Amino acid sequence: MEALISKYIPAGEDRTEFERLLYGASPIELPIVDAARELAAQHKFEIKAYQIPAAIEQRRHRRIVRLALIQNMIAAPTTAPVAEQYKAIEASVAQMLDAAGAMGANIACLQEAWTCPFFFCTREKYPWLEFAEPVDVVRSPSLKFISDMARRHNMVIIAPILERDEVKSDIIWNTAVIVSNSGEIIGKHRKNHIPRVGDFNESTYYMEGDTGHPVFETQFGRIAVNICYGRHHPLNWQMFGLNGAEIVFNPSATVGGLSEPMWPIEGRNAAIANSYFTANINRVGYEEFPNEFTSGDGKAAHKVFGPFYGSSYVAAPDSSRTPGLGRDTNGLLITEVDLNLCRQVRDKWSFPMTARIPDYAKEFAAYVKPNWQPQIIRDQSFQR
Amino acid sequence: MEALISKYIPAGEDRTEFERLLYGASPIELPIVDAARELAAQHKFEIKAYQIPAAIEQRRHRRIVRLALIQNMIAAPTTAPVAEQYKAIEASVAQMLDAAGAMGANIACLQEAWTCPFFFCTREKYPWLEFAEPVDVVRSPSLKFISDMARRHNMVIIAPILERDEVKSDIIWNTAVIVSNSGEIIGKHRKNHIPRVGDFNESTYYMEGDTGHPVFETQFGRIAVNICYGRHHPLNWQMFGLNGAEIVFNPSATVGGLSEPMWPIEGRNAAIANSYFTANINRVGYEEFPNEFTSGDGKAAHKVFGPFYGSSYVAAPDSSRTPGLGRDTNGLLITEVDLNLCRQVRDKWSFPMTARIPDYAKEFAAYVKPNWQPQIIRDQSFQR
Repeated sequence: MEALISKYIPAGEDRTEFERLLYGASPIELPIVDAARELAAQHKFEIKAYQIPAAIEQRRHRRIVRLALIQNMIAAPTTAPVAEQYKAIEASVAQMLDAAGAMGANIACLQEAWTCPFFFCTREKYPWLEFAEPVDVVRSPSLKFISDMARRHNMVIIAPILERDEVKSDIIWNTAVIVSNSGEIIGKHRKNHIPRVGDFNESTYYMEGDTGHPVFETQFGRIAVNICYGRHHPLNWQMFGLNGAEIVFNPSATVGGLSEPMWPIEGRNAAIANSYFTANINRVGYEEFPNEFTSGDGKAAHKVFGPFYGSSYVAAPDSSRTPGLGRDTNGLLITEVDLNLCRQVRDKWSFPMTARIPDYAKEFAAYVKPNWQPQIIRDQSFQR
Repeated sequence: MEALISKYIPAGEDRTEFERLLYGASPIELPIVDAARELAAQHKFEIKAYQIPAAIEQRRHRRIVRLALIQNMIAAPTTAPVAEQYKAIEASVAQMLDAAGAMGANIACLQEAWTCPFFFCTREKYPWLEFAEPVDVVRSPSLKFISDMARRHNMVIIAPILERDEVKSDIIWNTAVIVSNSGEIIGKHRKNHIPRVGDFNESTYYMEGDTGHPVFETQFGRIAVNICYGRHHPLNWQMFGLNGAEIVFNPSATVGGLSEPMWPIEGRNAAIANSYFTANINRVGYEEFPNEFTSGDGKAAHKVFGPFYGSSYVAAPDSSRTPGLGRDTNGLLITEVDLNLCRQVRDKWSFPMTARIPDYAKEFAAYVKPNWQPQIIRDQSFQR
């Protein structure tokens, strides 16, 4: 989208109007420091940086936070040993986290299941489940790495991994781990809504999360994680908002042809409806698996899943958004936000007051009962 | 938006890709019949017509329905007598309803408070409340007109008016009346969410609706009406969906500078999240009032409210949408849909099954209690 706009619409009045309609405002770019630019050039990832401004208040300090969204492709063939595949991705992500650190990022978020290929298309359990790890900084190689990076860069890092619950019956979960800038684990959230569509056979591997809608109070603001498919469910976004989230991250893995027209809509609607920031991250690239799989669409068996279309972006409560990262390249999106904007937008629009939640609580309580009847008014003249 | 795209991006591969990203699919235009084209030329309104296709099924007939969305400006000065102002709008809308009839429309929807200027910026009660009418085909001039048009064109018409409840204490409501193609009133819905923002001082005039989330079963499908500000509230959209709506109309009156970047997001997100069609209608033009009013934004008192930016469009459950009508011209948007698409998309994505509504019913029940505590997990290392 961004490439087409740059190609066809020259800078000027029309471009400004186009950006107002598409992004809510013309993007404000931030300078990219040399160290980050050099890492990007050397390791072939895109880097973009924007700022979303807020008003200055008299009785609160500004609450400036720099977000880092990282999108990446896998970095070794899926036929390589599991540990080697992971190490290759880690090396690639390390460069982007270093660049995020150089850019002064306060909170970084990686994509869903960042440690592994998105193998759920295969419906095979092995070797893929060997990517799963306990949520433990000592025993999980990826969380050890994340913890080190978090401390080194004084950065909160959201690390969505595949979790093995060794204490409770070896259950597998799709889990986002929130690592403090101190390097310690603050907590975790397990994916609430599990897809039943296309090649996303995730329900073969794990169940709906049992961690509710936690909001994590970090040094840099109150954050939450809506993992992937949860973005299709406005209630999921809303409960994170009611619990006080100022930024909700949506680490995802989704492919063109399935969800691409939804992508710029859902994260942005959530930011508008809940008066918070959303940070929407999708992986990139094609992933080729050793064995053929079918997709339930009548097409021949095949080995390649994709394209994951990237296009990561940040949406703001004032209905503006940043441009997206590219569709097919590793990328780092830095966005500087002022968290004061959340309350400023709430004060302007008053959505929490006009929401009538007590009425919906009653309607939902009725809806889930077996004897519920929909509120339907029939055209009697047509029935006669 | 549409004008800028036509101006800069030539037909071809890039245009097709741009439309895929922006609209979910390249628009399929429908031919416009001569009678409609002539009415449009003579009475200076825009007319566009599109088709949104669905798959053919073996065990259900196609359920083809043509929707007509009408956006218009007021047609006489606000200083004219109330009856005269109404008659001028009626004459203008009559031409567009006739064109909708010529195009074979089955369901037409007018904009919010279609019978009058959007005078809520003034905070004056008179003469404006004289536009209010009882919901009664005999006693309301506008509903008499709508009833006649509905019968003449065999068309269900949604008529959002200002309602005077003469039976209950003369209360004023913002109400959508659903008129059958037989000419009889099927029922009504009162606006659920009342704004507290900008010049939309509607809370000075009427209260939150008391009619719940009714779905009207007409000869042409199950329809509901989410009036204006309700589009900011995902729960409002959702309850209409749970009650069985296949098309939700969103008759609106909203102005540039306030909501324009939200407009293409919210109606479309609702269509995606609830697997139904949404039909989003906004009035057009500037409205000048006799007395000065202020806007609570530090600017000088003034008499003009606007621009209402039109841009009416239809969004489909498969995440596609039609292009919009213009920003500043009266317009008629015809869209032919196959209602079978709703269930087809539900079967594909399974959102109603992945929604976990019983869990949210519990969380909402807890939220509305006075002793509710948000689910917050604090960074203990930061607290130390």
